[in-house]
Amino acid sequence: MTGVLRPGHTQLRVLNLEESVKFYTEIFGLVETGRDVSGRVYFKCHDERDHNSFIIREADTAGMDFYGFKVLNAATLDKLETDLNEYGVPTERIPAGELLETGERVRFTAPTGHVFELYYDKTEVGDGLGYVNPEVIIQNRKGISPIRLDHWQIHGADLDGSRDLFIDVLGFSLVEKIVSTDGKLDLAVWLTCSTKAHDIAFVRDERNNTLHHMSFLLETWDHVLKAADLMSANRVPIDLGPVRHGITRGTTIYAFDPSGNRFETFCGGYSFYPDMKPYTWTEDEMGAAVFYHTRELNERFLTVVT
Amino acid sequence: MTGVLRPGHTQLRVLNLEESVKFYTEIFGLVETGRDVSGRVYFKCHDERDHNSFIIREADTAGMDFYGFKVLNAATLDKLETDLNEYGVPTERIPAGELLETGERVRFTAPTGHVFELYYDKTEVGDGLGYVNPEVIIQNRKGISPIRLDHWQIHGADLDGSRDLFIDVLGFSLVEKIVSTDGKLDLAVWLTCSTKAHDIAFVRDERNNTLHHMSFLLETWDHVLKAADLMSANRVPIDLGPVRHGITRGTTIYAFDPSGNRFETFCGGYSFYPDMKPYTWTEDEMGAAVFYHTRELNERFLTVVT
Amino acid sequence: MTGVLRPGHTQLRVLNLEESVKFYTEIFGLVETGRDVSGRVYFKCHDERDHNSFIIREADTAGMDFYGFKVLNAATLDKLETDLNEYGVPTERIPAGELLETGERVRFTAPTGHVFELYYDKTEVGDGLGYVNPEVIIQNRKGISPIRLDHWQIHGADLDGSRDLFIDVLGFSLVEKIVSTDGKLDLAVWLTCSTKAHDIAFVRDERNNTLHHMSFLLETWDHVLKAADLMSANRVPIDLGPVRHGITRGTTIYAFDPSGNRFETFCGGYSFYPDMKPYTWTEDEMGAAVFYHTRELNERFLTVVT
Amino acid sequence: MTGVLRPGHTQLRVLNLEESVKFYTEIFGLVETGRDVSGRVYFKCHDERDHNSFIIREADTAGMDFYGFKVLNAATLDKLETDLNEYGVPTERIPAGELLETGERVRFTAPTGHVFELYYDKTEVGDGLGYVNPEVIIQNRKGISPIRLDHWQIHGADLDGSRDLFIDVLGFSLVEKIVSTDGKLDLAVWLTCSTKAHDIAFVRDERNNTLHHMSFLLETWDHVLKAADLMSANRVPIDLGPVRHGITRGTTIYAFDPSGNRFETFCGGYSFYPDMKPYTWTEDEMGAAVFYHTRELNERFLTVVT
Repeated sequence: MTGVLRPGHTQLRVLNLEESVKFYTEIFGLVETGRDVSGRVYFKCHDERDHNSFIIREADTAGMDFYGFKVLNAATLDKLETDLNEYGVPTERIPAGELLETGERVRFTAPTGHVFELYYDKTEVGDGLGYVNPEVIIQNRKGISPIRLDHWQIHGADLDGSRDLFIDVLGFSLVEKIVSTDGKLDLAVWLTCSTKAHDIAFVRDERNNTLHHMSFLLETWDHVLKAADLMSANRVPIDLGPVRHGITRGTTIYAFDPSGNRFETFCGGYSFYPDMKPYTWTEDEMGAAVFYHTRELNERFLTVVT
Repeated sequence: MTGVLRPGHTQLRVLNLEESVKFYTEIFGLVETGRDVSGRVYFKCHDERDHNSFIIREADTAGMDFYGFKVLNAATLDKLETDLNEYGVPTERIPAGELLETGERVRFTAPTGHVFELYYDKTEVGDGLGYVNPEVIIQNRKGISPIRLDHWQIHGADLDGSRDLFIDVLGFSLVEKIVSTDGKLDLAVWLTCSTKAHDIAFVRDERNNTLHHMSFLLETWDHVLKAADLMSANRVPIDLGPVRHGITRGTTIYAFDPSGNRFETFCGGYSFYPDMKPYTWTEDEMGAAVFYHTRELNERFLTVVT
Repeated sequence: MTGVLRPGHTQLRVLNLEESVKFYTEIFGLVETGRDVSGRVYFKCHDERDHNSFIIREADTAGMDFYGFKVLNAATLDKLETDLNEYGVPTERIPAGELLETGERVRFTAPTGHVFELYYDKTEVGDGLGYVNPEVIIQNRKGISPIRLDHWQIHGADLDGSRDLFIDVLGFSLVEKIVSTDGKLDLAVWLTCSTKAHDIAFVRDERNNTLHHMSFLLETWDHVLKAADLMSANRVPIDLGPVRHGITRGTTIYAFDPSGNRFETFCGGYSFYPDMKPYTWTEDEMGAAVFYHTRELNERFLTVVT
Repeated sequence: MTGVLRPGHTQLRVLNLEESVKFYTEIFGLVETGRDVSGRVYFKCHDERDHNSFIIREADTAGMDFYGFKVLNAATLDKLETDLNEYGVPTERIPAGELLETGERVRFTAPTGHVFELYYDKTEVGDGLGYVNPEVIIQNRKGISPIRLDHWQIHGADLDGSRDLFIDVLGFSLVEKIVSTDGKLDLAVWLTCSTKAHDIAFVRDERNNTLHHMSFLLETWDHVLKAADLMSANRVPIDLGPVRHGITRGTTIYAFDPSGNRFETFCGGYSFYPDMKPYTWTEDEMGAAVFYHTRELNERFLTVVT
């Protein structure tokens, strides 16, 4: 309850811009909302109201440039920046307008090497249904068409550092964790700043500043099936799923974009409230924690990051 | 973000206790968790973790005795009591233990005549799955088996007073409203203290301190169908549904318990964040606001309260 | 098992052709497949393989011109024509090509006044997925997009005559019926020529040769919801639903096309096998038979036919 | 249309009878309907009307004893026996009562080594809902609770022989097939005697008289998820799924019973009509044919039979 609202935007590196634009609009089903002078392309989900939540830029390597959280207001932004600085984390102010239709951002690097941003201002463009007597469905959505950018799973060595930073400074809550066999190490943690079961997950991994997956929300288990069908019909390589998670109870499918970035489209999971005790998974049950049905991890899921 | 978590418990008057216990366990699918010396019977939903969320007592008239919100902790409880008093609302402390397994409660009456309670302490009994390597489903659930007590719609004359109290003192946000044809009056407001589309709704109605419905959450639209099927098979009188709401976008069914108390079992709806503009419905579109498919209200829905 | 396969085509009268074409393609989600010299417009469902299943023509009154069943082959067509004639039913041969891409049809009038057709030949155009290594989903379907023309409910005085004709000559089976309070009259019968719970239903009604509704199949209960949402968003007047039927166990929604013709879009229902005993509904339970949830019929459903 | 209705009963060998009874009632969700003097235990699905569809007996090896199809009536049984004999297939009459509540059976061995049975008489016990004003749902179903025994996939060397026997003598239709790279061999065929996409599948495999899986029908994709959840919660080893088939378009999950017999619980798939052209899959697309999402077969699915 420190004023961090949700994952708000994220910037992904892709190997071929136009192929990716085609993928993210026609198959993944996002709405292109703009391009900037540096060549970046901006998207939002059909049902998101802010101008953009997902930005891609062409690069030689895949991966995520930065991870942005929207916060409540200017005062919250200032307060969190001060708190970060007092905690020993240097911050940088990115001027308004550097991202299209987006206000000033406070940027910092977490101990796991990832670049995070906080911002409070982004132009509201709406979902097209209006605010007076709205319809309840957006017609003519294309492709997989997720509801919103939902969370990320990211990897780095100093999981403890990033975990503590998010809990102690940004006010996140620990919801679930996987602990090592000796009980001494958190191998992975799921953290929330809301009533979602997770807004971000950190996994202990020597490969700093890496992305395991970015995740987008679907409406129902039927949409998970439709997503899987669309992936196969369009030869999008599926990593695993449809399947249920033990962690969060969500139902999901993982696949790769044309640049090899893993994404998740999922739905469901319980609601978190701060009076909940966190769940603990032991290392030997990691399979069930991630893929509840088969209770087994696959090698690709464990090893591929960008 | 003032520390009110969610609707936590509520006490309903029923005309025949044992008939109601049978209804709420075998058909509605709650778990009986205790009875107290005054004869009250306590229930929780299968997936709730606190000892009780729903209490019934036998009485000559149907209706709701009180509406309880769980708050974050003792400090929050004290702060909110002070805030209420400063706002001019008298409060009463109900001692711990007056409700089974429940700590001290701060009670006050809202301008619409309803009795509310705030509390922070209730014994956690869990959902039976444990906190280490849990399963993701609770087996052998019976009947409709909702997930949780979710919200209430309640009626009274001074809607403005209750609305302002909840927004200004308890920190709720306005999510949707229906306004009168001349635009001068709020006829109904939907308020949230979380990211749910509503934790409570007030409707302007001369009949103070009345209950339109209490609402319980289901998992999916398939569960809404199953709920409707079970209602018919058990001759539970359905008011309306299955249907989609315009307001909140939820999908729902309304019916009556053996005492004539209306309940809702629903699922879905968007997530609220404080950067959302509220939706406004005009009086002439009230039908679509409530029952999006037929765009018409029925007389019974408009007139029956307890 | 006499070789009548299924409802194959039907020709509807509409009051405004272009408005109806727009409705049936953009909102209802059929594929226009042709127009003939008389101005008729032909459609198929996305997932149907024959050239057409639904034909509209402009006229001064709404209603159905004829009801066509596809049969197995030429020999079956000849045999059934002979059987009809021997039963005392005159038949007429409509030459191949009178309907686009459709072979010779055998036409007759049933005792309830409805014009039926049998045919075996219609050009296969496929569903676009091919017959070698097909994909499993058709992408970019629009609107409600049902799977197939499924059945009709039609009204007339001599229900007994039409019922016996379909059972004794065309080899249909009785699956369900509603009987009058005195048990002497069938008020409605559901008949099948396949393993569907119904391919046609007759209702006793003085208004001969009338259509209660034509019915199209959806895939799931989620699609029933989507259909209802699309109807409301496009101001298609809904008669009733989403709801479960007692009869057949299907889940459904009824609405009206721009000309006032009632249509049903539904899914589900049990499979019929000839070793099943038929179900009987008594007149006093007719409400539950049709609308299982509310167990009540509405006046409009009982009275409006075209 | 030769009068073979559907897979009606099947007898499975299990390694431990009581463990299997517990599995098939409490987890799989069948209803035990009787035991005979030889120790066999009989089951039906909740929604089946005949006395039994699934019989188990204790043995040293897993696998299927026989595969039974229900036919229309005594005349059909006699006719099919004659046709089999004329085709060169010897038959044996098993007397009525040898299986509980089951009439005389005609038994023969197919070229792939499997023992088949035809019968027309089995005591109807109903689904408990009655035939007058029935409810539409069976309450208090337990476990996975499939709707019916649906089909089998069985392996043997002389696929051509069994395929031709089923098509030429028993009147089945070819719906889908996988052909070898050179196009000369059917590697697998899916055959139907109804409007189901398959009532039986044969796969070319040197291991004669083996069972790949028996399959039971679920109602919806949500039930497939629930089945998968129940399997994991009860440590039923899952082979693969939830997943979509390319062949038949069904959605499914495969798992193993305590004796290592593979079963499938699935839903969906298109309806077959005899005017449909069969689908052909080429050997290189066998992955997508079976598991449409990942487009890959797993080794266990390819090799394990009982």
